[in-house]
Amino acid sequence: MNNKDGFNVTPWDVTGEVDYQKLIAKFGTQEITQNLLDQFKRITGEIHPLLNRKIFFSHRDLDLILNNYEKGQEFCLYTGRGPSGNTHIGHLLAWKFTQYLQEKFDVELYFQMTDDEKYLHIPNMTLKQTLGYTYENVLDIIAMGFDSKKTHIFSDIEYGKTMYSIAVKIAKHITFSTTKAVFGFKNSTNIGMVFFPALQAATCFLPSILKNKKIPCLIPAAIDQDPYWRGIARFVAPKINLPKPAQIHAKFLPGLGKGGKMSSSNPNTAVFTTDDVDVAEKKIKNSYTGGKDTIAEQKLLGGRPDICPIYDYYKFLFEYDDSKLKNIYQECKSGKLLCGDCKAHLGNKVKIFLKDHQRKREKAKNVVEKFMLRD
Amino acid sequence: MNNKDGFNVTPWDVTGEVDYQKLIAKFGTQEITQNLLDQFKRITGEIHPLLNRKIFFSHRDLDLILNNYEKGQEFCLYTGRGPSGNTHIGHLLAWKFTQYLQEKFDVELYFQMTDDEKYLHIPNMTLKQTLGYTYENVLDIIAMGFDSKKTHIFSDIEYGKTMYSIAVKIAKHITFSTTKAVFGFKNSTNIGMVFFPALQAATCFLPSILKNKKIPCLIPAAIDQDPYWRGIARFVAPKINLPKPAQIHAKFLPGLGKGGKMSSSNPNTAVFTTDDVDVAEKKIKNSYTGGKDTIAEQKLLGGRPDICPIYDYYKFLFEYDDSKLKNIYQECKSGKLLCGDCKAHLGNKVKIFLKDHQRKREKAKNVVEKFMLRD
Repeated sequence: MNNKDGFNVTPWDVTGEVDYQKLIAKFGTQEITQNLLDQFKRITGEIHPLLNRKIFFSHRDLDLILNNYEKGQEFCLYTGRGPSGNTHIGHLLAWKFTQYLQEKFDVELYFQMTDDEKYLHIPNMTLKQTLGYTYENVLDIIAMGFDSKKTHIFSDIEYGKTMYSIAVKIAKHITFSTTKAVFGFKNSTNIGMVFFPALQAATCFLPSILKNKKIPCLIPAAIDQDPYWRGIARFVAPKINLPKPAQIHAKFLPGLGKGGKMSSSNPNTAVFTTDDVDVAEKKIKNSYTGGKDTIAEQKLLGGRPDICPIYDYYKFLFEYDDSKLKNIYQECKSGKLLCGDCKAHLGNKVKIFLKDHQRKREKAKNVVEKFMLRD
Repeated sequence: MNNKDGFNVTPWDVTGEVDYQKLIAKFGTQEITQNLLDQFKRITGEIHPLLNRKIFFSHRDLDLILNNYEKGQEFCLYTGRGPSGNTHIGHLLAWKFTQYLQEKFDVELYFQMTDDEKYLHIPNMTLKQTLGYTYENVLDIIAMGFDSKKTHIFSDIEYGKTMYSIAVKIAKHITFSTTKAVFGFKNSTNIGMVFFPALQAATCFLPSILKNKKIPCLIPAAIDQDPYWRGIARFVAPKINLPKPAQIHAKFLPGLGKGGKMSSSNPNTAVFTTDDVDVAEKKIKNSYTGGKDTIAEQKLLGGRPDICPIYDYYKFLFEYDDSKLKNIYQECKSGKLLCGDCKAHLGNKVKIFLKDHQRKREKAKNVVEKFMLRD
């Protein structure tokens, strides 16, 4: 369903080659400027590679959050996960950055598992399956190293009493017409999905309601989720006299398929956190790359890191040392670094990461209840 | 919003002079036949006046419930209340009959307080107000004499976790189109109201889900609520492999205003359970009646009990002795019974009832938690 721009981004589908500059104009968000990066440096003493590399590239009211933070005003973080299957490495991007923000700003985090949405949206999925994925995904979230004292994970279903009572307050101000305009809902959309935007927006106000004072939240998430905040939460906030949520938007980590595609029908295009480490290494080894057709040609003309998912894996997650990343880029372009070696190097990094993650994930089973909000 | 029939019945509005025979045809329900009344007599040893007088006049699958009951199969009762204000005597009709059914059939009752619906539907109502009415209305319900061991009252908001988890299972099968067709929802309807039918239908399946076995429910309620069961619960039941709800439909107790109108802007057209007994007596005294313009004319030509709300109060609630009711009817028609005396007699009965109800209502405050389902 690409439009005239050649790409389409909705909370349920991302298709085509995304032009992030066009998306900023289309969604009406703000680019993260050098001023904002300088402000991060002033506050935290550094600029995280995900900011510096413009992987988190866009925002709404992030300036307001940082200005107020510098004046001593608190904020909280909110991010989420739709538990439609196992966690893959792409999901970790926003979580890793969120964990970083929590650590640097020492703030509370509310982590929403939208199991209702996934159950309602995916025709053949049972509620039991979705709740099973909620548990499995929560293990991955905990393994990221969030502070158990300041991190509150909840499932829309399991925390349904609290969430429903907030969601109705939002729903009262949102018409079906609005959801048509914001999400493209149709008359054939099921009424659970029609209502769901109220639940996703509810988390923006949950901290204020739980603590009985106005606490703005900052949402680190991929930019496809923006319509929930733009069209629902930010629209309703003044009507219920609570702060508008601020956002910081990430780009999408490409999959390992041709042209950076990640296909749910082809598990080889994504590395899952539960993959056997050797299977993961093999997926990397078999990935599409920006390499030339023959080794001879590549040695002569160089590779194309700008269209290479392997390079993106380094850039987004596995090489945060700028000089090393630059080295990979230049050696690829010059023809010195061949795809086989580059993939072997990344495969090794992914293996090391996965071993560690899986160990932490196993340990997470013992502390799930420390993190969960329950009614 | 009357249509060509001169009346309109929706779950939120009843306007015009309702033709109950036409309504049976329009809604596609079944009339309660003599056969069914005989079956009640066989089972319970009697026929309740509300059945005999055709105040409960229509049904869906009541025959199935009774046949299966005679074969030893259990069922449960489900009724509800939208807490939009104080309870008036008209609300007690279905509750009184439900209490009777519980006693005679010794069955569990699930009583839904749809505070979410009322909050979502009434523009200026706050959630706090609605929850306040939930509590006040629950006192009236308990005062009706339900068996605390077998009666489970819950608020959609307070029991939100359980209810939401069932409602999503229903919502997945209901499109916005369906709610347009069944309830006349429009693009301007708020998304909470669009979702709400899933919550109202959820109670039909709550007993089966709580007890983990298939338990059909019988719903005694005024006929305006039929669309929820016809269009949602009975439609979804086979899709989620649970029994369709059966229903038994009541007519509406008229208000005390002209032509049997009850107007929420004029509290004098309804007797509230919390009214001071003398105020209640005065409302009866000032009621519209089917009497003639002058005493002389009435003595000569007789009154019109068939269009008289005072007569309906006797018939629906305050005179269950058939011979005494017949007497009132005949003496009115003959001109012997004048409105003043008739209202004084009813006023006295209402006072006695209210004194007793208010005493029970006060005592109910101590046992609320015995009745409530909470997450």
